Amino acid sequence: MDRLQYSHIVAAALAEDLGFGDVTTDSILRDETGCAEIVARENGVLAGMPVVVEVFLQIEPALTFTCLYRDGESFNRGDVLARIEGPVASILKGERVALNFLQRLSGIATKTRAAVEMVAGTKAVIIDTRKTTPGLRVLEKYAVRMGGGRNHRFNLSDLVLIKDNHIRAAGSISEAVARIRRHAGFPHKIEVEASTLKQVKEALACGVEVIMLDNMTTAEMCAAVNLVAGRALLEASGGINAERLHEVAATGVDLISMGTLTHGSRALDLALNLL
Amino acid sequence: MDRLQYSHIVAAALAEDLGFGDVTTDSILRDETGCAEIVARENGVLAGMPVVVEVFLQIEPALTFTCLYRDGESFNRGDVLARIEGPVASILKGERVALNFLQRLSGIATKTRAAVEMVAGTKAVIIDTRKTTPGLRVLEKYAVRMGGGRNHRFNLSDLVLIKDNHIRAAGSISEAVARIRRHAGFPHKIEVEASTLKQVKEALACGVEVIMLDNMTTAEMCAAVNLVAGRALLEASGGINAERLHEVAATGVDLISMGTLTHGSRALDLALNLL
Amino acid sequence: MDRLQYSHIVAAALAEDLGFGDVTTDSILRDETGCAEIVARENGVLAGMPVVVEVFLQIEPALTFTCLYRDGESFNRGDVLARIEGPVASILKGERVALNFLQRLSGIATKTRAAVEMVAGTKAVIIDTRKTTPGLRVLEKYAVRMGGGRNHRFNLSDLVLIKDNHIRAAGSISEAVARIRRHAGFPHKIEVEASTLKQVKEALACGVEVIMLDNMTTAEMCAAVNLVAGRALLEASGGINAERLHEVAATGVDLISMGTLTHGSRALDLALNLL
Amino acid sequence: MDRLQYSHIVAAALAEDLGFGDVTTDSILRDETGCAEIVARENGVLAGMPVVVEVFLQIEPALTFTCLYRDGESFNRGDVLARIEGPVASILKGERVALNFLQRLSGIATKTRAAVEMVAGTKAVIIDTRKTTPGLRVLEKYAVRMGGGRNHRFNLSDLVLIKDNHIRAAGSISEAVARIRRHAGFPHKIEVEASTLKQVKEALACGVEVIMLDNMTTAEMCAAVNLVAGRALLEASGGINAERLHEVAATGVDLISMGTLTHGSRALDLALNLL
Amino acid sequence: MDRLQYSHIVAAALAEDLGFGDVTTDSILRDETGCAEIVARENGVLAGMPVVVEVFLQIEPALTFTCLYRDGESFNRGDVLARIEGPVASILKGERVALNFLQRLSGIATKTRAAVEMVAGTKAVIIDTRKTTPGLRVLEKYAVRMGGGRNHRFNLSDLVLIKDNHIRAAGSISEAVARIRRHAGFPHKIEVEASTLKQVKEALACGVEVIMLDNMTTAEMCAAVNLVAGRALLEASGGINAERLHEVAATGVDLISMGTLTHGSRALDLALNLL
Amino acid sequence: MDRLQYSHIVAAALAEDLGFGDVTTDSILRDETGCAEIVARENGVLAGMPVVVEVFLQIEPALTFTCLYRDGESFNRGDVLARIEGPVASILKGERVALNFLQRLSGIATKTRAAVEMVAGTKAVIIDTRKTTPGLRVLEKYAVRMGGGRNHRFNLSDLVLIKDNHIRAAGSISEAVARIRRHAGFPHKIEVEASTLKQVKEALACGVEVIMLDNMTTAEMCAAVNLVAGRALLEASGGINAERLHEVAATGVDLISMGTLTHGSRALDLALNLL
Repeated sequence: MDRLQYSHIVAAALAEDLGFGDVTTDSILRDETGCAEIVARENGVLAGMPVVVEVFLQIEPALTFTCLYRDGESFNRGDVLARIEGPVASILKGERVALNFLQRLSGIATKTRAAVEMVAGTKAVIIDTRKTTPGLRVLEKYAVRMGGGRNHRFNLSDLVLIKDNHIRAAGSISEAVARIRRHAGFPHKIEVEASTLKQVKEALACGVEVIMLDNMTTAEMCAAVNLVAGRALLEASGGINAERLHEVAATGVDLISMGTLTHGSRALDLALNLL
Repeated sequence: MDRLQYSHIVAAALAEDLGFGDVTTDSILRDETGCAEIVARENGVLAGMPVVVEVFLQIEPALTFTCLYRDGESFNRGDVLARIEGPVASILKGERVALNFLQRLSGIATKTRAAVEMVAGTKAVIIDTRKTTPGLRVLEKYAVRMGGGRNHRFNLSDLVLIKDNHIRAAGSISEAVARIRRHAGFPHKIEVEASTLKQVKEALACGVEVIMLDNMTTAEMCAAVNLVAGRALLEASGGINAERLHEVAATGVDLISMGTLTHGSRALDLALNLL
Repeated sequence: MDRLQYSHIVAAALAEDLGFGDVTTDSILRDETGCAEIVARENGVLAGMPVVVEVFLQIEPALTFTCLYRDGESFNRGDVLARIEGPVASILKGERVALNFLQRLSGIATKTRAAVEMVAGTKAVIIDTRKTTPGLRVLEKYAVRMGGGRNHRFNLSDLVLIKDNHIRAAGSISEAVARIRRHAGFPHKIEVEASTLKQVKEALACGVEVIMLDNMTTAEMCAAVNLVAGRALLEASGGINAERLHEVAATGVDLISMGTLTHGSRALDLALNLL
Repeated sequence: MDRLQYSHIVAAALAEDLGFGDVTTDSILRDETGCAEIVARENGVLAGMPVVVEVFLQIEPALTFTCLYRDGESFNRGDVLARIEGPVASILKGERVALNFLQRLSGIATKTRAAVEMVAGTKAVIIDTRKTTPGLRVLEKYAVRMGGGRNHRFNLSDLVLIKDNHIRAAGSISEAVARIRRHAGFPHKIEVEASTLKQVKEALACGVEVIMLDNMTTAEMCAAVNLVAGRALLEASGGINAERLHEVAATGVDLISMGTLTHGSRALDLALNLL
Repeated sequence: MDRLQYSHIVAAALAEDLGFGDVTTDSILRDETGCAEIVARENGVLAGMPVVVEVFLQIEPALTFTCLYRDGESFNRGDVLARIEGPVASILKGERVALNFLQRLSGIATKTRAAVEMVAGTKAVIIDTRKTTPGLRVLEKYAVRMGGGRNHRFNLSDLVLIKDNHIRAAGSISEAVARIRRHAGFPHKIEVEASTLKQVKEALACGVEVIMLDNMTTAEMCAAVNLVAGRALLEASGGINAERLHEVAATGVDLISMGTLTHGSRALDLALNLL
Repeated sequence: MDRLQYSHIVAAALAEDLGFGDVTTDSILRDETGCAEIVARENGVLAGMPVVVEVFLQIEPALTFTCLYRDGESFNRGDVLARIEGPVASILKGERVALNFLQRLSGIATKTRAAVEMVAGTKAVIIDTRKTTPGLRVLEKYAVRMGGGRNHRFNLSDLVLIKDNHIRAAGSISEAVARIRRHAGFPHKIEVEASTLKQVKEALACGVEVIMLDNMTTAEMCAAVNLVAGRALLEASGGINAERLHEVAATGVDLISMGTLTHGSRALDLALNLL
């Protein structure tokens, strides 16, 4: 992730929180300098430290920031994740925005890591969806990677994904795929959403690269895996929760997409303490 | 909430999701028109319908949008919340972004409503915090109101909130308050964070309008309520979950702030179905 | 005031003035370096020096800027306020924009200081209004503070201010206040505009924090002060000019708001001289 | 003036004033519709009505706006300048921003008209300077035109203006002009700042189109007019106030530039009344 | 192509060309209405009409625009491509910007069409590159499609393209591909740049989807086609001009990328005539 | 050209090309540092090096950039134009955008230089037009200057240019000029488009500064030069290609404007090689 990709997101978040200025801090503090720590209040996986650095540097370039953990690393309750030194007023002004980013992104990374561990030993890869927070997709997809997951398509121009509505409009899967081949660029893989084995067969016959098994039972997924036999990637999708995750992974699907990684994760409990 | 406050948020979300264009839809659909419904797949409280309207109108002003429920209303699983008519391609292009907004905001409203109902019969008011998604604060605080909650301060320039770090920097609560009175404008109320009864007393002696009872036990809160006896508003804050909510409300505090309303709520399950 | 709050204002001002480039300077100068001074051509109070620094640094980070006076300090005709060293071309390109900011803001600070001195010895505090230059409110309210005044609300989301039109729409002051208490957040103080003593009484009975005495005579203000007896803050407002200022302050009102501080002040006479 | 030139200025001004929403109006009003008038409380010349229309339409496209006076027209105290009908809440939300624009711009037009009338009967044209409010130059220069004045250059890329610092850097006026002729484009006229008759002669010898008589006495100006005898435009500049205006115009100069038109004018007294 | 994708590009172009206003048109014209035509002064293929519509509507929503040809259609010298009715001043203000877009984009479409026709009868598809004008990529790639070409990747996040520098950094093609498989998402196809048949073999052995034949001779390309035998797409790239185009297509490659479509095309000769 | 004028153009170009990140480079490279050279693959004139520096510094401030040629200098095939040292990943991410700017701008400078050389020995100056790439005008006009040309007006607010449509609307050249003199500011020169000698005479009689000879034959131009005899600048315009250039220059016109400098130039062949 490059700084160019999130510096404007940070600037907007700071403007939103700062308003016409931090009336409390500006009234009470002068030029005091000090040191603060970002501390974990529960176990988790870190994501978002470069964003936190950006938050504090946009407020005050003179702050010194030391990362003690790197994104993607696990930490335990009580661990000190980073240290910040410099003007106390600047630390206080950035605290809430910095934590809002770090807690959310680490929450996603932590939830992803848990899912990844649940499918360990299978070939299934945990992937995300486009069910991300408006405006924060680049950050949330990064957090999924830090948790050990991989990314589904970033947006509508990335990968062709033929859904039920497209199939209905075209009349059939094969007609939909034919239209794609006439109009879309060669760089795009084609994925087709299938909710029955018949549709899986039709998609496979069209030579698509990926088939999404939409809201299928575990038994249907097994049948699809046998049917396809490696000739296309298979993505399990739709309401797959923690309980069902291992069972789904055991069917032999290649990818398991989980919207809940981004839209259902909660902020991790982290704090910033002035020393 | 005025359209001026969220139209740029919607524009950014659409740009993020559209990328260089919806390669699938543009390859398969032409000028077909159709009708779609937004349907609830679980019970909840609605928030965000004006944002959804904005999403679709930015894509295609010719779309017709009919809201069947209003923000703040409860709905049940299976209810049709809105109807959209017009070019199918435009409906499909807006679907994901519209749902990302509506599911998140309705999730917040629903969670807030549940908390509000748990404190029914007490005088406690459920309020939010600044623990919101970067860039979406105006929408998330609106969703809290739609759920029946009220808003804490919007940002750092809104209300004076003297926290432990400010107190330490000033030396005492009274010195911190004195500095505020010398520098801040008259429009600001002053709130002081207190973690002991001694601090509550000191804050009360300074004549502040609001006192935050930070991470206190229920017994301590009762004592604070008795001590203050209506001379300041009391805000209960810190780790107050559903189990403890009624008990805290019963102490007689005026406000209960819950960061989890915004940073811990999950997206509600809603769908857009083409008819 | 934080740099984040005005750096985009400076960037827009420079773009406005630079257009497609300074055709005169770029044709005549090469890499000459030099030194310039900002000099006062009349007495006044300084405001805006950090903005001037931002102007020059956005043009050329290699410029060295030395402030000889700080914002809020008084200076006399002939005083050197700041010194700039570096490429002469860059100094000339920033000159007009820098002075446009500094002259305007120092004009406001100087006018405010004069008003503050006129009410010395009373408890009245001089405050501003929302009658500021579109786009420059954060700077102009800062200049008022540098002159020794205090700020009224920053914008419409800051403080509840119930004006005559709101009262008419609600039917009465008490109904208007009741609606506020039902809908607005606890962080907001409530101010009511009153143009008669009867309205002052009604507002007081509602327990509002601030009452604006709108276009009252000095005698009416005295009566209002006696009536309220410290139970609410009283703001004198409406056509209060220099002649009447001391008399109004002597009535015992707490606040005197003057739109003229921002919309009626003239630019102070300052110059930038190359040495 | 085209709408494209000021719609973003209006949007920024509304965002600045609206903050997180008009808490007072949104709590008290619902869907009431009504009618308001913009009324003059003193005599003046109108400027800025299209900007006011833009303010209200950005808030609520359903508002109906009727201009009763056009920009550039004179009005008297008590005149109704415009009428607005529609949702009262929207009228109230736009009131302050609309007036801030209209009062400032009409103030400039009024001050300009007064200056123009003072030089009536001479050939002198009243012009503005670059001493405008940062961010509002396009509007303020428009207001000068509405008052009957004309515009000096808009920015640094418009017209070559060789000032004393440029002359010093080049060594002489003729060397400075020579460098311009080598580097600048043919579309630019050249103006030279002269503070002595000797410099006027040197500039004239270089064939420049305009000569600025900088801070000269009336006698010096007369001499310059005789010397130049129509071979270049002559601009009188520097500290020309109302008292001296007619005398300066009578010297026969072509242009009189007055920074005070924009940086020294006060807001005209206008009000918005709900009927 | 959706309007959301280019409306901000149009706004920036208009701001750039309008500056502080069209001084000529605003001085000469009042409210005259009229009719204009966009006329071809040479043969070509149209691209960019929706952008032209956007240009004129941003200036004046009251203009009526009638497209007589659609993007992708061929036209002959003398053909009328579109008709515009409304205020003449608005037509004149938009003329240059509208033509700048339409001439450039139609130039690209025309050049692409010529290349496409030269490879008719072969299976080769003409594609573009990332050698586009900064800021206009979405428009230029659209123009290529209108000319009958297809698009290579839009940007660096679209398709994996392993170039010589990446191979060198990884040590070998197979190591580079292995790293991609470990880190990149499944939606991405992988393309490898090969300048020798040995590299083609290595890439093929890695199972990549596309192989770029970089600056190969026609004979080498033939060998590569035989070697690969349909197991990967082959892209011919590097210095392929019109003379060599048919010969290259005849080798049996799948894709021929031509940077010159976008960076080497000239503006088509089109004019706007007022009737 | 000041950095303020192009840094936002560079930022937009990088965002366009980077998308959600360089998936290839980020998967393959880690922290390797290296050195790259920008090399000429054909002869030309350099323009755009400061823009290239900006591209790389926006990606990674730690990169070291050494310019070996300066803008405006000629170079030969094989020459190394610049050297870049630092993280290889950052060099690769900026490569395409940097070259897209440098190739285009150097192409313009090279084409301009050729035209300038063709008119050597005459007094004709080669100038550009407003036929520039939307969004890049400031850069392309700079490139023309680097090639030895001069600039025509930058935009519609720069110079009065009365075209045939304006003349028709006004009724005559003299009426059009009269309206300009009534409304436009004194800083603007007036240019009139003339397509016949009669119009040249009429324009001359009005005392305009510049007359554009629109699509005249060489003989007509000679006649115009004799007629005007230095009393106005004469600009030859309209379809002047390389073959005719010297002949036109020899007529004695002052200016020759060529739209093809910007809209007809191709990208110069430059490459970035990692060492």
